[in-house]
Amino acid sequence: MARSRIAIIGTGLIGTSIGLGLAARKEREFEIIGVDRDRNHVREAKRLGAIDREAGSLEEALENTGLVILAVPVIAARKILQDAPPYLSPGAIVTDTCSTKADILRWAAEFLPESVHFVGGHPMAGREKSGPAGAALDLFRNATWAITPSPRADEKAVGVVLGLIESLGAVPLYIDPAEHDTYAAAVSHLPILISVALFRMVRDSQGWEDASLLSGPAFRDLTRLASGDPTMSRDIMTTNREAILHWLGRLQTELQTVRKALELGGEPINDLFTSTQFDRDTFIANPPMRRRPEGPEAPSSQDAIGRLFVGGLYDKLKDVTTRTPTTSPRDEAELRRKLGIEDDGRTR
Amino acid sequence: MARSRIAIIGTGLIGTSIGLGLAARKEREFEIIGVDRDRNHVREAKRLGAIDREAGSLEEALENTGLVILAVPVIAARKILQDAPPYLSPGAIVTDTCSTKADILRWAAEFLPESVHFVGGHPMAGREKSGPAGAALDLFRNATWAITPSPRADEKAVGVVLGLIESLGAVPLYIDPAEHDTYAAAVSHLPILISVALFRMVRDSQGWEDASLLSGPAFRDLTRLASGDPTMSRDIMTTNREAILHWLGRLQTELQTVRKALELGGEPINDLFTSTQFDRDTFIANPPMRRRPEGPEAPSSQDAIGRLFVGGLYDKLKDVTTRTPTTSPRDEAELRRKLGIEDDGRTR
Repeated sequence: MARSRIAIIGTGLIGTSIGLGLAARKEREFEIIGVDRDRNHVREAKRLGAIDREAGSLEEALENTGLVILAVPVIAARKILQDAPPYLSPGAIVTDTCSTKADILRWAAEFLPESVHFVGGHPMAGREKSGPAGAALDLFRNATWAITPSPRADEKAVGVVLGLIESLGAVPLYIDPAEHDTYAAAVSHLPILISVALFRMVRDSQGWEDASLLSGPAFRDLTRLASGDPTMSRDIMTTNREAILHWLGRLQTELQTVRKALELGGEPINDLFTSTQFDRDTFIANPPMRRRPEGPEAPSSQDAIGRLFVGGLYDKLKDVTTRTPTTSPRDEAELRRKLGIEDDGRTR
Repeated sequence: MARSRIAIIGTGLIGTSIGLGLAARKEREFEIIGVDRDRNHVREAKRLGAIDREAGSLEEALENTGLVILAVPVIAARKILQDAPPYLSPGAIVTDTCSTKADILRWAAEFLPESVHFVGGHPMAGREKSGPAGAALDLFRNATWAITPSPRADEKAVGVVLGLIESLGAVPLYIDPAEHDTYAAAVSHLPILISVALFRMVRDSQGWEDASLLSGPAFRDLTRLASGDPTMSRDIMTTNREAILHWLGRLQTELQTVRKALELGGEPINDLFTSTQFDRDTFIANPPMRRRPEGPEAPSSQDAIGRLFVGGLYDKLKDVTTRTPTTSPRDEAELRRKLGIEDDGRTR
């Protein structure tokens, strides 16, 4: 029974939603323990049934715990990785849900003992409302969940995290941490800045009162990310600045192109809207394939977490996921070249 | 029975949703007739129960019709206003749902006979999916519906359109057409360009395949408007170009400020996220007041449309809405000054 415990460090929107999903498992054999710097958050998570028990300290949360889930902003995760080693059991599996992955993998390698398995993760999910009050059992249903195992993590550890992901209804996507950060900057981090800029633009204008009266779902949807947790956003910008600046530059160029089309009027702007509608509708109707593990050898989501506590190993793990884990970062120069980033970080 | 007919010209997302709302009225005394350049759209609207009958021509749709709803892109509406006069009954009420209001008011004054009452309208509602297939009975529930009566429209006509708005569960907002276009450019039209620019930026990059695999709700929500009807978007840009260019310039400035904060790091970016989260949460929690008509004299949404056909007049109409209709455009110079637009259209 020594390892039949899962700890959720950080019971905000993501941590509490994970807890709700784990707690809903039938005949579960593990205890869910939660801890949060904000006592109100952990109490709320307990009240919602997302955790069984509140830990009074990091030590209490980590002691005899088989699976540790760091669901905190990335800079806070660094501190926890620094502080955790004395309390972690040998063989413990540590995963996270942070929005950037390269730094956290580096810190895990730097601070965690070799006996601990770190498997990075990032669920591509969110809600307008942050904190445990926004949590939901189905937050991760069909969401992509990026998975970035450390080179030291063994297959069992990767299998447990895969099981966690699958049991929450999400779809795992193996990706190299540097690639993750580059692309997340485009589809997830830059959008935060867009939401913030659009909201500030209208809010700080003299027409705010009238404009806000007139605003509807378009303004609400496009500024949603401006209501995200500011610490999380700040940490994203701190740990992924270069890539975000790269995409911000591209967006600025794109807006300048749109401006020219608008000034010209007629065909250019018509073509822009027509081709973009076509491309986006195609993307929405046929989203890129994220195949679930399949075949007789595949772990089922029912078994995956359970095996954590019976010591089972997954065979042929690499066969059952769409991509093999990249254990060493790809050639960064190649990635930069692919993206058109010059060595000084500017866009070509 | 001569006037117990409502015509919906254009059975796309908005027109079909209006039809669904009208058709759901209990004990309705009117027929709903629909027409669309796209025969598939009007057949789909009929199949969904949004219209009772398909008209084969504009003439057939307008003949003996008391209320005409133009739910088409704004340039198409111009053509209909030009073609309609021979078929419109004296006393007919014409309203529209177009995204820009100044031009349509001008065209209504230019083309419609004095015996016809034009009351402009713009529901602030939308969905990812355009066309009748995206239509929904509750599309307008609690949505702001801008209302811009022409100076010639009488109180009864305004009352009927108010009744239409209220019976669909929306909240009317009186606004001057020029003001509408200026603020809609900020909260509704510029967001279309942002969605298009963000989608194109990622779609046209070499990393599209990986980035799209990783994309989640943030990318989906922020690019939603790129799936809007391209003709509608083009017409918006054509009829409201100056205001949209103004706000696009402001957004470009705002993004440059965000870039500087990001390059500096630390406090500036932290302050930006913290203050913006606070301001947006405040806006969402306490949206600006759009009071519904109240008091014993107020028309109820049950009665409003019904009275169209019994010839009732609303008394004290101006008392029951939050703003009195502005029958003459506000001093444009004042508006431009308020917004910081110089006479050459540039931002100060």
